[in-house]
Amino acid sequence: MTVNLNEATHLAAVKGIRLAAGASGIKKNNTIDLVLIEISEGASCAAVFTQNRFRAAPVIIAEQHLSESSPRLLLINSGNANAGTGESGYRNALLTCELAADVLGCKKQQVLPFSTGVIGENLQVDCFEKSLPELVSQLGSDNWLMAAKGIMTTDTVPKGITREIQIDEETITITGIAKGSGMIKPNMATMLSYIATDAKISADLLTECLKTSVEYSFNSITVDGDTSTNDSCVLLATGQTDAAEIKKSSAGFSVFMQALAEVMQTLAQSIIRDAEGITKFVEITVCNAVSYDDAKTVAYTVAHSPLVKTALFASDPNWGRILAAVGRAEIDKIEVDQLSIYLDDVCIVEEGARAGSYTEAAGQRVMNESEIKITIDLAMGDCQATVWTSDLSYDYVKINAEYRS
Amino acid sequence: MTVNLNEATHLAAVKGIRLAAGASGIKKNNTIDLVLIEISEGASCAAVFTQNRFRAAPVIIAEQHLSESSPRLLLINSGNANAGTGESGYRNALLTCELAADVLGCKKQQVLPFSTGVIGENLQVDCFEKSLPELVSQLGSDNWLMAAKGIMTTDTVPKGITREIQIDEETITITGIAKGSGMIKPNMATMLSYIATDAKISADLLTECLKTSVEYSFNSITVDGDTSTNDSCVLLATGQTDAAEIKKSSAGFSVFMQALAEVMQTLAQSIIRDAEGITKFVEITVCNAVSYDDAKTVAYTVAHSPLVKTALFASDPNWGRILAAVGRAEIDKIEVDQLSIYLDDVCIVEEGARAGSYTEAAGQRVMNESEIKITIDLAMGDCQATVWTSDLSYDYVKINAEYRS
Repeated sequence: MTVNLNEATHLAAVKGIRLAAGASGIKKNNTIDLVLIEISEGASCAAVFTQNRFRAAPVIIAEQHLSESSPRLLLINSGNANAGTGESGYRNALLTCELAADVLGCKKQQVLPFSTGVIGENLQVDCFEKSLPELVSQLGSDNWLMAAKGIMTTDTVPKGITREIQIDEETITITGIAKGSGMIKPNMATMLSYIATDAKISADLLTECLKTSVEYSFNSITVDGDTSTNDSCVLLATGQTDAAEIKKSSAGFSVFMQALAEVMQTLAQSIIRDAEGITKFVEITVCNAVSYDDAKTVAYTVAHSPLVKTALFASDPNWGRILAAVGRAEIDKIEVDQLSIYLDDVCIVEEGARAGSYTEAAGQRVMNESEIKITIDLAMGDCQATVWTSDLSYDYVKINAEYRS
Repeated sequence: MTVNLNEATHLAAVKGIRLAAGASGIKKNNTIDLVLIEISEGASCAAVFTQNRFRAAPVIIAEQHLSESSPRLLLINSGNANAGTGESGYRNALLTCELAADVLGCKKQQVLPFSTGVIGENLQVDCFEKSLPELVSQLGSDNWLMAAKGIMTTDTVPKGITREIQIDEETITITGIAKGSGMIKPNMATMLSYIATDAKISADLLTECLKTSVEYSFNSITVDGDTSTNDSCVLLATGQTDAAEIKKSSAGFSVFMQALAEVMQTLAQSIIRDAEGITKFVEITVCNAVSYDDAKTVAYTVAHSPLVKTALFASDPNWGRILAAVGRAEIDKIEVDQLSIYLDDVCIVEEGARAGSYTEAAGQRVMNESEIKITIDLAMGDCQATVWTSDLSYDYVKINAEYRS
């Protein structure tokens, strides 16, 4: 199931971006598994990649190619992560770039490869070889939704969003897609996400925008605390609008940043709303901390606690488990006698113990909702952080126990 | 279910220790929930307590009393943790010490209180008041098994062990009991464990022995990464043997340490063998690390990974998930190209990728066992650490979703 997640249905075209997606045979049952995103010449490209030390072959190559050349094509397959595949995985990823470059007529360094799916299986290069010519012939600007479908693995619905803003009386479009629902605790980037805009903006400023927005979106979610070997997030700006270039000093910058933040936060949250086995969408805010890092550490400690997550699944207002999780967070200091905890608007803990005004009925009322906000007030400083997570259900275990069978 | 866990049936008496256990009404259905462990005068006592910042009232008082006086009584209840109960929890815990001291005829500072069970409910002091006189009259040296039963919460069997060693041609007895099967990632101590010996040994040396042994036993296990607010481990030495005092320089010291380590490791492992929802008992050894801390961090990262744990539940040799967990461990450096991973004797990863000799059939053979050893060779140094853990099953979710209902 999903929690208040709308399946993407219409995603607006972005001038300068063409896409195609098809079933190449990597996945069984004629399922879409190969996606091409073609980028117009002169576009800016920013990307962040997984911080897991075991980076899949395509991640290593994508980062290298990006440093060498201006990308013209993102080549994405689902069904096989090409991770833990050693030398041959590296060769295979490079081979798919060469194949795509040949068909498209660009350099292999202008192709960035991305893979997601099962770890440790050899990539089926022949599926690429067979499908690429037809896919290239199908490139079109209205295929965002097909692309969103093509990058799915355990996702139950395609995830995407479009925002339009006005700069210089011109409409600027931002369209993004994402995939992911398990092995989610991104560190610098989510599973896979591709966002494009027709704004004019330099690659340097675009990178800065991406890094800032990633911190408060994809790097603020968790399903199970597991960081994937393949996480990647790419932000493209084709510059094909008639509006002036966005600079840090220009009036449009904050408008653009706000829209980008909204797109990325919605995509990040959509990954949680589709988390494996989810029955509750949970927002955890830690406020009045000494630092942002402290706040985020406490929020993640609560978000990762299996006991908190199973209590959420059971709609059980077991605030003692939240308190115990806060108490083991690895930060320098917690004033246990000052801490308050709220479930939505219900104060469950004050001064470090059960709130005098708390009743089980009030806690139960909140817990019965499918969206729950947990607020932890450390009463020590003025920094805050928010993370989004899911509960831990039978279905999470089922999905992950049966993933390869 | 449990994995190769033998229910404690006979536990040997320790000279100088008398015990009693009964149903005081804290738990429903006339279940044993109150345990007394009386300690002879002149005994040495060492203890370690939870490092969770939210320490339950009894933990705070036990530590304070231990610093003020030589304990004569451990007063332990199950069914209510007296945690998150604020000022009134503190007063109630103190009150139970006073009640027990009155009946036994000692100072209240000589009573150490311990509680385990639901967090955030007020302790039922009247149950103590009503039951203490009869329990004190029943104190006897052969009641270890009853005590082991009396401290249980979600445990399915009582846990205990006796070891006898010879020092100076005298038999020295070490008997220990423990409880715990969820909210287990002890930090300095497990849920609750009480170990006694008739050896003569100073309180200082006993504390040193306890701290060393705890590191390689209770502080090397995890079920769910959650550290309880009530974890406590107490080691008593009554000195009632006729053997000479054990000193660091004496021949008997290493014999004693080895036996103690064995008792504590067996108790710690028995908590995992009875872990909530367990179907696999898993030993994770990280070897050839730069430091013991690095080794332990990697081992715990793998042990806590929900994706590794669900793969273990499914008997799925999904080595990619182990690799991905190692890759996100928070240590300074990992040489990804040198790492090897073994499932029992089967090499699954070499030089950071799937081993050439590996077959799914070989991996499957190991995964079908109920006891599995995972060895991760970092090939960087000469330090190693071992932790023990369980898998993540439907029943873990079920037990923790239904705990309070």
